[in-house]
Amino acid sequence: MINKIAVLTSGGDCPGMNAAIRGVVRAAQAKNIEVFGVHNGYVGLIGKQIVPLDSRAVSDTIHRGGTFLGTARSEEFRTSAGQQKALANLQELGIDGLVVIGGDGSLSGARILGEMGMKVAGIPGTIDNDLWGTEYTVGADTAVNTVVDAIDKIRDTASAHGRVMVVEVMGRESGWIALTAGFAGGAELILIPEIAYDLNRVCERVKEAVANKHHCIIVIAEGAGNGMAIGDHIHRKTGLETRVSVLGHIQRGGSPTVFDRVLASRLGAGAVKALLDGKTNVMLGCQGANIVAIDFADALGQKKVIDAEEFNLASIMSI
Amino acid sequence: MINKIAVLTSGGDCPGMNAAIRGVVRAAQAKNIEVFGVHNGYVGLIGKQIVPLDSRAVSDTIHRGGTFLGTARSEEFRTSAGQQKALANLQELGIDGLVVIGGDGSLSGARILGEMGMKVAGIPGTIDNDLWGTEYTVGADTAVNTVVDAIDKIRDTASAHGRVMVVEVMGRESGWIALTAGFAGGAELILIPEIAYDLNRVCERVKEAVANKHHCIIVIAEGAGNGMAIGDHIHRKTGLETRVSVLGHIQRGGSPTVFDRVLASRLGAGAVKALLDGKTNVMLGCQGANIVAIDFADALGQKKVIDAEEFNLASIMSI
Amino acid sequence: MINKIAVLTSGGDCPGMNAAIRGVVRAAQAKNIEVFGVHNGYVGLIGKQIVPLDSRAVSDTIHRGGTFLGTARSEEFRTSAGQQKALANLQELGIDGLVVIGGDGSLSGARILGEMGMKVAGIPGTIDNDLWGTEYTVGADTAVNTVVDAIDKIRDTASAHGRVMVVEVMGRESGWIALTAGFAGGAELILIPEIAYDLNRVCERVKEAVANKHHCIIVIAEGAGNGMAIGDHIHRKTGLETRVSVLGHIQRGGSPTVFDRVLASRLGAGAVKALLDGKTNVMLGCQGANIVAIDFADALGQKKVIDAEEFNLASIMSI
Amino acid sequence: MINKIAVLTSGGDCPGMNAAIRGVVRAAQAKNIEVFGVHNGYVGLIGKQIVPLDSRAVSDTIHRGGTFLGTARSEEFRTSAGQQKALANLQELGIDGLVVIGGDGSLSGARILGEMGMKVAGIPGTIDNDLWGTEYTVGADTAVNTVVDAIDKIRDTASAHGRVMVVEVMGRESGWIALTAGFAGGAELILIPEIAYDLNRVCERVKEAVANKHHCIIVIAEGAGNGMAIGDHIHRKTGLETRVSVLGHIQRGGSPTVFDRVLASRLGAGAVKALLDGKTNVMLGCQGANIVAIDFADALGQKKVIDAEEFNLASIMSI
Repeated sequence: MINKIAVLTSGGDCPGMNAAIRGVVRAAQAKNIEVFGVHNGYVGLIGKQIVPLDSRAVSDTIHRGGTFLGTARSEEFRTSAGQQKALANLQELGIDGLVVIGGDGSLSGARILGEMGMKVAGIPGTIDNDLWGTEYTVGADTAVNTVVDAIDKIRDTASAHGRVMVVEVMGRESGWIALTAGFAGGAELILIPEIAYDLNRVCERVKEAVANKHHCIIVIAEGAGNGMAIGDHIHRKTGLETRVSVLGHIQRGGSPTVFDRVLASRLGAGAVKALLDGKTNVMLGCQGANIVAIDFADALGQKKVIDAEEFNLASIMSI
Repeated sequence: MINKIAVLTSGGDCPGMNAAIRGVVRAAQAKNIEVFGVHNGYVGLIGKQIVPLDSRAVSDTIHRGGTFLGTARSEEFRTSAGQQKALANLQELGIDGLVVIGGDGSLSGARILGEMGMKVAGIPGTIDNDLWGTEYTVGADTAVNTVVDAIDKIRDTASAHGRVMVVEVMGRESGWIALTAGFAGGAELILIPEIAYDLNRVCERVKEAVANKHHCIIVIAEGAGNGMAIGDHIHRKTGLETRVSVLGHIQRGGSPTVFDRVLASRLGAGAVKALLDGKTNVMLGCQGANIVAIDFADALGQKKVIDAEEFNLASIMSI
Repeated sequence: MINKIAVLTSGGDCPGMNAAIRGVVRAAQAKNIEVFGVHNGYVGLIGKQIVPLDSRAVSDTIHRGGTFLGTARSEEFRTSAGQQKALANLQELGIDGLVVIGGDGSLSGARILGEMGMKVAGIPGTIDNDLWGTEYTVGADTAVNTVVDAIDKIRDTASAHGRVMVVEVMGRESGWIALTAGFAGGAELILIPEIAYDLNRVCERVKEAVANKHHCIIVIAEGAGNGMAIGDHIHRKTGLETRVSVLGHIQRGGSPTVFDRVLASRLGAGAVKALLDGKTNVMLGCQGANIVAIDFADALGQKKVIDAEEFNLASIMSI
Repeated sequence: MINKIAVLTSGGDCPGMNAAIRGVVRAAQAKNIEVFGVHNGYVGLIGKQIVPLDSRAVSDTIHRGGTFLGTARSEEFRTSAGQQKALANLQELGIDGLVVIGGDGSLSGARILGEMGMKVAGIPGTIDNDLWGTEYTVGADTAVNTVVDAIDKIRDTASAHGRVMVVEVMGRESGWIALTAGFAGGAELILIPEIAYDLNRVCERVKEAVANKHHCIIVIAEGAGNGMAIGDHIHRKTGLETRVSVLGHIQRGGSPTVFDRVLASRLGAGAVKALLDGKTNVMLGCQGANIVAIDFADALGQKKVIDAEEFNLASIMSI
């Protein structure tokens, strides 16, 4: 039995977080469960920034980027004292279920509270799409559409000029954004942290691409190298004019795509259902058409790997 | 063994058709298979509008809406004589594999040629997402994003005015676009052909929504009623100011989303692989992360049904 | 001397109204003038829905469509009693300047209050761009970009199919949206209320366009005819497949363009400056690079006419 | 009398160049003048990459970014020999009028040919909007909309996190893009090359903004400083988390806005008209609602200055 649920967003924000919050609130309301929103993630949980959320509180939010609850990083929550305080604050309000929306680190925080006895469910919210057990994380589809929008614009001018265009995108440890956006943007080269590359060979392929197609677009995940430095290197080695865009936090913003809105809503409803079904310490995920609940032990213990076949296909497609 | 492949687009066009053609061409080229493009669907197949397509022919197409090969409806292809002529034209050029991109009717055409001995593979391309055996068809994701873009704009003005806004979207027999876009757009009411509704109850719920939320957005699939007529009816019954948008063919156009570009590319490559693997009379589809080949007998013989759970969820989310 | 200013939005809303409100608020604040916001236009002025607005109240609004103050049509304000009440409410709060954002009718309301002694300034806010004395009204640039976005999508599919596409846009008495969007969208035919046309000749030109260019896009201002009816007529007369989109209120929504944000901000600041300079009964407008104050007598007494040269140029450009 | 006109695009490309070419071609055709397109700017003029352009050649181009004629920088054209060759190539084909689309440097090239006797007209095409005598250059409106789109996305995430966000935009000598986009994007700080700033005071204002508004967005023209370096400096001085986006060539691409399409079409038609009217050595420009022809001596001899009032207003609006 669950009577009161709290929801928070934590870590790097992503498009669709508002839709996920809305999903939690409205699914809970349909079951007559009270919902509370925690401002600024674990900081607000410790600092008791906890307010009731009713159905109207989430009106007109499904299409908004960012998170109206705010997020923050909490040093205090890394300590046992901070975790105790967070738990006590929830208990004081009679909250018996917590939904955390965020990436790997944020869900690990939920897991700690889960192990301390709170019933917890996690919603994977990160543009990196790097969580195991779910085909998509909330925000990933929007982020890659933002990047491809940029690549489409860059191609206009790359074609006009016969230039090398470097686009640095997010992804410190995960190349999913770079791979997917590079694939969909028709990039000639994609550099990701998961796959080693040789800069000399990259320069060779740049020269080939410019010779064949009059331009070369390179998408680089930040974890695979610094866009500015690589652009500079290519220019010095090949003599070709090279221009660099570093997209940065644009990728975290924007109105979520349909895919992200629907996914976030379904995961939000799924989190409420999981808690009502007596589950805890689970991350909700999507597998094919289904919403599934995966034990934190599995979801957070394993690393999602890049689809090598897709990487090869992207390369074949860019010929 | 396959030596030469032809590709055509047929029926209603959709965003991503160019990406699918490109996928076929480049995957084939990577296997040293020659590719031909057929202009204007089966009309061009009968009329021998068949040209070689090399890798450069599909450059700078992945992001373009429509289909650079054109599509058409062919009466002649409904006749046995037309079908014979189409087959003969392919054979004359030594083409031993055909990829058809289109909806239900277009793939049925491929099936006929398949039964006559041509090796055929189909790629589901239709904004309606109504083909059995694939979670998504090419173009569907783009179409719903276009619709939701429109709904987001309409909400701005609906909220300002306290009005009833009716949005008629495509879908003669399928409510997928209306349901998905209505869900993601936060519409208060969704009317689809698969689920009967009572106009009087619709009017009641419109009044409730306007009372609670100061506006009411209704998304109607064309197969569930005429937007103009229903808007008129609501106005007369409720006295509320009602405005109607009929989106029409906007939904078929636009640059494809990342999802559609990747899906189309993968299905294009999948079609080539299927033919090379000796398969024929199959439609390529996506199921979870996988590309699968489904017998035409299955894919075209069954009807995809709307997910009742999603319909209910959309309704809960709109409270 | 002005001490307190009120601002309201009235009539049909348009993108950029929020930016205009923000412009008024922040320009006034920079001069240490208190600002009040009136909800729901003249309805709220009569009903005393008047709240203080400080700088933070307009944070994060410049990019939002619609108007956060709401608009409404007021029957009561048409009566002398209603007007007296509106004036009394302003005076009671010590408000000695009023800024009204809206179209022709809304500014006429301001003019009445101005003649009763209130100091008033108007900001032209209407997507129709039909106010005399200003080259642009707030919202017009956004609206035509929305329409052209739709036309661009429609062209993708028109070209694929060889079809006639009719797009009905707003403009009961003004063809500016149709003309500008048709021009920029490369439409083959543009029908506007200001210029008489012969449906038979329209059909002739449709046939020519389809013969030469494989498609024909027709943009119709609502005041020049009913899109559905004209589409039907063309189909019957020419036998060509014809599809109709009725864009409706999509045109009033959406995030304002840069042009509209800057214009709205400058007009908002201009309205405050005009009141401070002792002006009243003026509409702010843009002429070239300048913001000017035009007497209501001029601005509301004359009708802006469509630029015949631009209409001819649009026609030459569409050959 | 003019019988044959050539058109070329040169220098950095910008959105709307295709619309300008189309404008030239169709306006000329309406006067029965033959038009030739020169590929790759002055390189192609010297290398005789000159092809006839008819009305169909510019179909379906008005909405495309980049320039289908290509652009390039020509060292050879800086020499007298190169200029003679360029002129001779035009004369050999009987071309008696040349339209050049580009920025300051490109129009200076036209001026040289004009002084050598060719009849020349220039169309200001540059995203920097830095040419004297015209309120807008082709491409500027699109570029600032692209930047503001990025800023809007960044604000979503800036608000969620309480961060400092630096956006570096184009503009080596001109701050127009930064000022206009910063204004419309509601940036807290705008740094441009025309106005000196003190980094210590910038840091003070960053701290104030974060304290008051929980975030601070800074737009920097590339000519006013390196975004990465300034972001780093702010972080070190204030201790605040700072993120940097370098938009780069995204700003040169994308489908042109309505404003740019109409402006480009009108300037294209204006260039043809100017040549037919016997004018030469002129740049076409827009002043208010009018298209005017300005002597190169004026247009290229003076520098457009940033509107100080607009800069102040942007600052007032961002409080």
